[in-house]
Amino acid sequence: MKRIVILGAGNVATHLFEAFAKTPETEVVQVYNHRKAALDYFRYRVDTTCNLKALKSADFYLIAIKDDRVEALIKRLSPATAIVAHTSGSVPLQNSAQHNGVFYPLQTFSKHIALDFSKVPLCIEADTTENEQQLMALGKTISQHVYPISTSQRKSLHLAAVFACNFTNHLYAIAEHICAEQQIPFDTLHALIEETAHKAQKNSPAKNQTGPAKRHDQQTIDAHLEQLTSAELKEIYKLLTQSIQNKHGQNI
Amino acid sequence: MKRIVILGAGNVATHLFEAFAKTPETEVVQVYNHRKAALDYFRYRVDTTCNLKALKSADFYLIAIKDDRVEALIKRLSPATAIVAHTSGSVPLQNSAQHNGVFYPLQTFSKHIALDFSKVPLCIEADTTENEQQLMALGKTISQHVYPISTSQRKSLHLAAVFACNFTNHLYAIAEHICAEQQIPFDTLHALIEETAHKAQKNSPAKNQTGPAKRHDQQTIDAHLEQLTSAELKEIYKLLTQSIQNKHGQNI
Repeated sequence: MKRIVILGAGNVATHLFEAFAKTPETEVVQVYNHRKAALDYFRYRVDTTCNLKALKSADFYLIAIKDDRVEALIKRLSPATAIVAHTSGSVPLQNSAQHNGVFYPLQTFSKHIALDFSKVPLCIEADTTENEQQLMALGKTISQHVYPISTSQRKSLHLAAVFACNFTNHLYAIAEHICAEQQIPFDTLHALIEETAHKAQKNSPAKNQTGPAKRHDQQTIDAHLEQLTSAELKEIYKLLTQSIQNKHGQNI
Repeated sequence: MKRIVILGAGNVATHLFEAFAKTPETEVVQVYNHRKAALDYFRYRVDTTCNLKALKSADFYLIAIKDDRVEALIKRLSPATAIVAHTSGSVPLQNSAQHNGVFYPLQTFSKHIALDFSKVPLCIEADTTENEQQLMALGKTISQHVYPISTSQRKSLHLAAVFACNFTNHLYAIAEHICAEQQIPFDTLHALIEETAHKAQKNSPAKNQTGPAKRHDQQTIDAHLEQLTSAELKEIYKLLTQSIQNKHGQNI
């Protein structure tokens, strides 16, 4: 049985904890966080600590804290045989521990929305082949999609994820705002959002493009720009329309 | 049994035809299109015609052609008792027929991707209460989500749909492009795209926002801007980041 210490108590830490709790092949032996209050969720289920000097021995120390604190935290750890792996999309592979790795789950996590971790892609990187194999094996206990990737691939994936998740969600929020102005329940758009995401998984999104920008339907584009009262939304509308038209060329 | 003539042979017309074909309460008696070749899909299953003067009698004439041709086509129809309804999100309710309506399916349709029409929201508008009731009843034979909406609500829904579907799909295409540059299969992002869409249906997207923009993580934002080589993509990244930060205020 592999022993794991999770460092961090946020969204990623919580979902990792729940995923490992479900597999008999691993045991989370401790959760560390620098603020005690954040450990409330865990304290009746596992040993918790706010003291780095009180960390238990383990096979893996998984760091799920804010990106800009990962490096400093890892420098304070010094397990001789365990692998220290962070879970960030944008932090480089570290080298201050004896055994270093990355265990990056490519997913958007909310504490209160359950999800099936077996479908979450896990991107693995490590300083040695042996450590990569160990992390791959650990990943496979909770996910069906475990990939070894390079630092530069991980950086690109993280950037791509900002477009496909963070920016996409903001477009949903804009749509929600437009609906609210007309007292339209946002539910009305749910099926469309679902189908758009579904199609992107069946076919290349570049080939799925539809809408007034793609059709070069200037009459509708002008009407939409007139409807938008916010200068910011007009600018987003114009820029994305132009970008679609740059990609798809003339009306077809 | 309600008799329907569909005018048009594109994505919307095709999906409407398939949806009505599945219900015993309606019969599509004819499909019209101005180009004969586009009728190939239908010709072994229903009467087809390219001649407006050869239209069969029916209870409903549903117009699913390009937005800018709807008005002119409807002016050429003159059924005395039937309802003439177009299926466009952006064309106003017409008044040139005896009985006029709108039968707008709020969904993104691709000819070759099957979908469950019962989940497609249908937005209904008509010139009289009687005609609205008729169109609502027709809609309910193929969809579980049939709403009466006003012209101004429909205009806003169509605009919101551009953000939630067309622009969102373009962001997927950008993410796909970033992945391709690093030989990363786009599949790696599928679970993230799925979950982002899923969360938008569980919770307000405004509340779901995550990512470096929301966290005001300037180090990651700068690194991403440096990674992007295209001036256009840099501009989109900056504008959407700024818009998220305008909405969500200071780091929390």
